[in-house]
Amino acid sequence: MINIEEIRSAAVRLKGHVRTTPILNSPFLDEIAGKNIFVKAESLQHTGSFKFRGGWSAISAMTEKQRKNGVVAISSGNHAQGVANAARAFSTKAVIIMPKDAPALKITNTKKLGAEVILYDRTNQNREELGAKISKERNLTLIKPYDEPLVIAGQGTCGLELATQCKDLNISNAEVMVCCGGGGLTAGVALALEKEAPDYLVRTVEPERFDDVAKSLKAGKICRNKSMNGSICDAILTPEPGKVTFPIMRKLCGEGLTVSDEECMRAIYFAFIRLKLVLEPGGAAALAAALFHSEKINSDNIIIIATGGNIDKETFAAALTNYN
Amino acid sequence: MINIEEIRSAAVRLKGHVRTTPILNSPFLDEIAGKNIFVKAESLQHTGSFKFRGGWSAISAMTEKQRKNGVVAISSGNHAQGVANAARAFSTKAVIIMPKDAPALKITNTKKLGAEVILYDRTNQNREELGAKISKERNLTLIKPYDEPLVIAGQGTCGLELATQCKDLNISNAEVMVCCGGGGLTAGVALALEKEAPDYLVRTVEPERFDDVAKSLKAGKICRNKSMNGSICDAILTPEPGKVTFPIMRKLCGEGLTVSDEECMRAIYFAFIRLKLVLEPGGAAALAAALFHSEKINSDNIIIIATGGNIDKETFAAALTNYN
Repeated sequence: MINIEEIRSAAVRLKGHVRTTPILNSPFLDEIAGKNIFVKAESLQHTGSFKFRGGWSAISAMTEKQRKNGVVAISSGNHAQGVANAARAFSTKAVIIMPKDAPALKITNTKKLGAEVILYDRTNQNREELGAKISKERNLTLIKPYDEPLVIAGQGTCGLELATQCKDLNISNAEVMVCCGGGGLTAGVALALEKEAPDYLVRTVEPERFDDVAKSLKAGKICRNKSMNGSICDAILTPEPGKVTFPIMRKLCGEGLTVSDEECMRAIYFAFIRLKLVLEPGGAAALAAALFHSEKINSDNIIIIATGGNIDKETFAAALTNYN
Repeated sequence: MINIEEIRSAAVRLKGHVRTTPILNSPFLDEIAGKNIFVKAESLQHTGSFKFRGGWSAISAMTEKQRKNGVVAISSGNHAQGVANAARAFSTKAVIIMPKDAPALKITNTKKLGAEVILYDRTNQNREELGAKISKERNLTLIKPYDEPLVIAGQGTCGLELATQCKDLNISNAEVMVCCGGGGLTAGVALALEKEAPDYLVRTVEPERFDDVAKSLKAGKICRNKSMNGSICDAILTPEPGKVTFPIMRKLCGEGLTVSDEECMRAIYFAFIRLKLVLEPGGAAALAAALFHSEKINSDNIIIIATGGNIDKETFAAALTNYN
């Protein structure tokens, strides 16, 4: 199991390259939840999501020779952009394997950041096999999106930052809601907070029907989702928790929460009007849980990690028009 | 003329109450401008604009007795919310005089922050006379939106912060574009940078046909706009530069720039898609100047103060739908 020292080492490698994202709040949001809500806006991170942390952590830890050969990553978009942007800074070639149905914006951005994009069919092709094949054939280092200690360590730096910032704001006994896919961010943040803010409890938030982590935490073993399609929260749809991340989450996290797509769209509207933030559906899931399911949260202080803001303009305009 | 010491004193009073807003950038924006763009996101300040700084600065410097009596402010919305929110924190009564045609969101928010709102007609009523009358009758301290040294000192703290942050990012020889109404922020930032970043030049950005500051800087004396209606940039429509702010701007600022309403709407779209920020038209003017008039900017590094994000959802959705 990875430990706090690996997260601290990642923080040293990321220093000066990662943005310290702000903690925002609004009395209007507190009123809706009946509790104090604090939002760490990782949507403002480079490439619009926390994934840049893990990408930089992994590439900065590689050897010069590995960096010269290049990297390959599999992602629906946020990990793709995080890895592509970090690779660009290191002048490393990046090949990104993305599902055909990923948001157009994420595919375009990844290409514009200089990466070679290979599209695959989410329903018919096994992405892990495809990644392994390309990695071997072209001698590229595979950077997994979450089940990779260096990536988890990079995402964990978000937890170190959060602990410092929230202690400065005198926030104690909080529950920390994390939008959760495979669990890389959740595991990293939980490990960081175990040491730096032991009075904080990490809880996962997932879309309804894609609550593999919540089910797995409840069952005490890895459970799988029945389907991989049918939610707007593309950034956090994963078949099952990671083999590296799950034992960490099982040890450190509270009960998992779920939210509906409609609740995510309403949270997007509230983040817009009250915090002046642009969030994507998967990046708004934790805020949705705080706003609309606060009765399932025990502490008076809720810290949200708003994980990403890579949303097509049509979907964002729809959230503003149809919800309030 | 106010000096750097008053700004530093304001920074002490604001410490722990104001947010340190982040500096954001994007390779995609740099590509459009052909220069390096750095955006200080004051839209993420409490109440969605830098105006909270001036409101807090003024109220925190008042005597206990003055605070017990209460304050009055005149504002189309951002100064209103900044003063109302600061007053609320000090348990001070706030009366806000707002134009009838101010954005609905700004009026609603100001009321929700506990202020008493008095509406006036922008074309028929003299707002200064109305403010003086209410101040006298009800024994309330008038907090002017820009022509008040304590307010200028508060806004100037944004400049102190910017200097520290941009030096950390190794940005030298920059031009700092400020969305400019009466000049409170511009004057405060210019005074702060004169001492803390003398290699930075402050320049004002105003809407076309409401370029009273640009005209005044050119003429070397205060000039007035012909009209007060007809731009979407409600936050920065002022009849003329302030009597306190103008001599400071004349001494320290470069030539003023202007942008069209359409350019502000396009800048709103680019801030959304590339920075994940919500900006209002007047708060996007400086970014519009950098993106679409970079040939009028001499330095390779452009620092933008994105001053506010209080925009109705209909206008924001229109910016996303109609521009790209």
